[in-house]
Amino acid sequence: MSKKPSIPKGTRDFNPEEVTRRNYIFNVIKETFALYGFQPIETPSFENSETLMGKYGEEGDRLIFKILNSGDFLSKVDDKLYSEKDSNKITTKISEKALRYDLTVPFARYVVQHQNQITFPFKRYQIQPVWRADRPQKGRFREFFQCDADVVGSTSLWQEVEFVQLYDAVFTKLGLKDVTIKINNRKILSGIAETIGAEDKLIDFTVALDKLDKIGEDGVKKEMREKSISEDALQKLQPLFSFKGSNDEKLNALSEMLKTSELGMKGVEELEFIAKTIEKLGLQTASLQIDVTLARGLNYYTGAIFEVSAPAEVNMGSIGGGGRYDDLTGIFGMPNISGVGISFGLDRIYLVLEELNLFPKTVSENSKALFINFGNKEALYAMEAITNLRNAGIKAELYPDDTKMGKQMGYADKRNIPFTVLAGEKEMEAQQYTLKDMKSGAQSSVSYSELEKMLAQ
Amino acid sequence: MSKKPSIPKGTRDFNPEEVTRRNYIFNVIKETFALYGFQPIETPSFENSETLMGKYGEEGDRLIFKILNSGDFLSKVDDKLYSEKDSNKITTKISEKALRYDLTVPFARYVVQHQNQITFPFKRYQIQPVWRADRPQKGRFREFFQCDADVVGSTSLWQEVEFVQLYDAVFTKLGLKDVTIKINNRKILSGIAETIGAEDKLIDFTVALDKLDKIGEDGVKKEMREKSISEDALQKLQPLFSFKGSNDEKLNALSEMLKTSELGMKGVEELEFIAKTIEKLGLQTASLQIDVTLARGLNYYTGAIFEVSAPAEVNMGSIGGGGRYDDLTGIFGMPNISGVGISFGLDRIYLVLEELNLFPKTVSENSKALFINFGNKEALYAMEAITNLRNAGIKAELYPDDTKMGKQMGYADKRNIPFTVLAGEKEMEAQQYTLKDMKSGAQSSVSYSELEKMLAQ
Repeated sequence: MSKKPSIPKGTRDFNPEEVTRRNYIFNVIKETFALYGFQPIETPSFENSETLMGKYGEEGDRLIFKILNSGDFLSKVDDKLYSEKDSNKITTKISEKALRYDLTVPFARYVVQHQNQITFPFKRYQIQPVWRADRPQKGRFREFFQCDADVVGSTSLWQEVEFVQLYDAVFTKLGLKDVTIKINNRKILSGIAETIGAEDKLIDFTVALDKLDKIGEDGVKKEMREKSISEDALQKLQPLFSFKGSNDEKLNALSEMLKTSELGMKGVEELEFIAKTIEKLGLQTASLQIDVTLARGLNYYTGAIFEVSAPAEVNMGSIGGGGRYDDLTGIFGMPNISGVGISFGLDRIYLVLEELNLFPKTVSENSKALFINFGNKEALYAMEAITNLRNAGIKAELYPDDTKMGKQMGYADKRNIPFTVLAGEKEMEAQQYTLKDMKSGAQSSVSYSELEKMLAQ
Repeated sequence: MSKKPSIPKGTRDFNPEEVTRRNYIFNVIKETFALYGFQPIETPSFENSETLMGKYGEEGDRLIFKILNSGDFLSKVDDKLYSEKDSNKITTKISEKALRYDLTVPFARYVVQHQNQITFPFKRYQIQPVWRADRPQKGRFREFFQCDADVVGSTSLWQEVEFVQLYDAVFTKLGLKDVTIKINNRKILSGIAETIGAEDKLIDFTVALDKLDKIGEDGVKKEMREKSISEDALQKLQPLFSFKGSNDEKLNALSEMLKTSELGMKGVEELEFIAKTIEKLGLQTASLQIDVTLARGLNYYTGAIFEVSAPAEVNMGSIGGGGRYDDLTGIFGMPNISGVGISFGLDRIYLVLEELNLFPKTVSENSKALFINFGNKEALYAMEAITNLRNAGIKAELYPDDTKMGKQMGYADKRNIPFTVLAGEKEMEAQQYTLKDMKSGAQSSVSYSELEKMLAQ
């Protein structure tokens, strides 16, 4: 093979710095999940195809990566079907497994399969890769990690309150201030549709409303008219286009607008509980903002809907989202289990932290010191010190070969190792080590215990 | 879907306890890798098929999971080929990607692809799942994690020395004492083959010798005779069957046996350097043992060969292995890069720690306290305390619903949460909390700061 090897489009190699930074984000999220009582589960990378197919719509089915059966897979395809040469029809005959498309359906499958071992309400988190045969483009990959936390088995709104706190806690720890947690409620959207007499057009109406940010009031109205939403209905919608002010003011306006809709008022009541409780408990750095245009994932959310926006100074869009769904496990024959969950958008959070220079300098798995190799006798002396340093939890390494000093120093330099240690015959005799600060160039002669003390800092 | 959902055979769900225990092992290994100067990389779960195919032998090619192309994949198969209905021939036409089979080939691909960004010697570790379409059986899975550390770009034996130390450090931290690190050298095996005049039968001869533990001296000799190894050769081999004693004694016997083989003597010299250096540096709990029957992965190892055995009291076999290879990246057009690496067998280490009851009790992501929910007013009082506890790094949670106390207590019990906190009207008035130890049943009335102090322990 003479051409340079490559990886499939839409996938990525991660170098040490990238892995370390990604793990830093994962660890902050994991620690916070655990602080909030969530416990980790993991599911297989591939599921039986029947578990995944039909759960994400037609487009989703197309984007699921299917795994070819092993062995003589064509022998199971009957000749008549084979002669049609129809990719769609043959797929289920030659492929029985598929790569995970998200963490939600495998979680639902897990809950149903292990229901007798699970203590409900079940608070689980899951951080694993998912795969989608999407057209790769900037910021969209065919393999990426999802970070989800969900509770199933309780309808309590305290969980929504905790998820708002959890978002605040994670982004505060990451140093990402001024994050906006937007919240809406499916019942409010249904209530509005009811009030304006467009119940049958709920999806069209919310899809259009969701674009207010992007296409403005006139654009939204144009799209609604195209979907045959009446002028009378648009008239009634007017207050939404100038929906401003504090959460309290918005709640008042919504109460006024939705007073004839029982469902709508239920949504207002839920939103009010969450907003007022968060006001009493306080948030550290994030703010909670009612946004009635938010319609994310409306097809399955039934209560609260969340979306987190990065600080306005970075142009990144949503870095997290979630909501309440009332029948997650119904698809696997276990109906009426209410759940609520949120997720973090790792790749975007990474880009935001990078852009704002928020990764701590100490996020590094790098060695603290490189011992220069002057030959086997000196290397043994060095290795004795290195062994002791490692036992003390200090990252140190020996350059493996006794090559030219310049090459060894160059290695320390390129690897950004902050100190080198030189120990030749003279140092061995005096039971000393020469410690060199690679940045300042300063050198000092130290005993082992001084060495350990200086490198431990 | 009415039948209970399931997962593909050979795959596993991991519940919170299992994930936590697996992460405990991973973390010990990762921390130790970092202490030794290794840095993490990650590669995509699937590679271009041409990267993987042909690298693991015919059997390996068969066991690689192939991913079906998306869209109308049959349209790219010409009618003539299609009409043959030959699974083998059609595979490369309908599948261009395949799941990672191990971490070694993707690592070689990574090194070649990114050679201009890498500082050599390159010390990397990688902990990711791999997939094999093997027949599932006890302890053998179709998806499992590999934990590998390798150095490429140096032939220095100090690296072998460090890997012995690294094994010792990891197993010592895991509390797994009396692990045996067996070491051999490909050059010694080649030297023996040379000495007995069976150079052309090196593989047959070492495959047979490797079974000494299992089938005994007579079994090995029988197999060698079947492979047409001469009686004269068997005669010369005799010392190997009673190869006992200290590493020093074994080295002396090998020197005697291999004195006419230059290559063999080079192997003895290498083994001697590693064994003597380890003797000087000392190991914490493991022992290093020369084992000339060890032939693991002989097809690609060219120098040292390692294998780690669990303590004799558990019947588990190898829990780690590795060795030196001289041409890892040659398959991708970058020749003469020497490397040496080791890996840890996570699943087996897990079983050993479980059998010996070595998982620390504190390995748990579990909440420290469950606050009982007496209704919204009381829950707010509880949530204020919970918020403060979480800010102090203490895991705590509120039962989401104000259901019967028995049910809430039962939840704490089943989840093994050690404390419950009760705060009703009386406690709220007194600004107190009733803390209940779920094991002893003891209750005490405490202030918030006392509560935090007690739960922090």
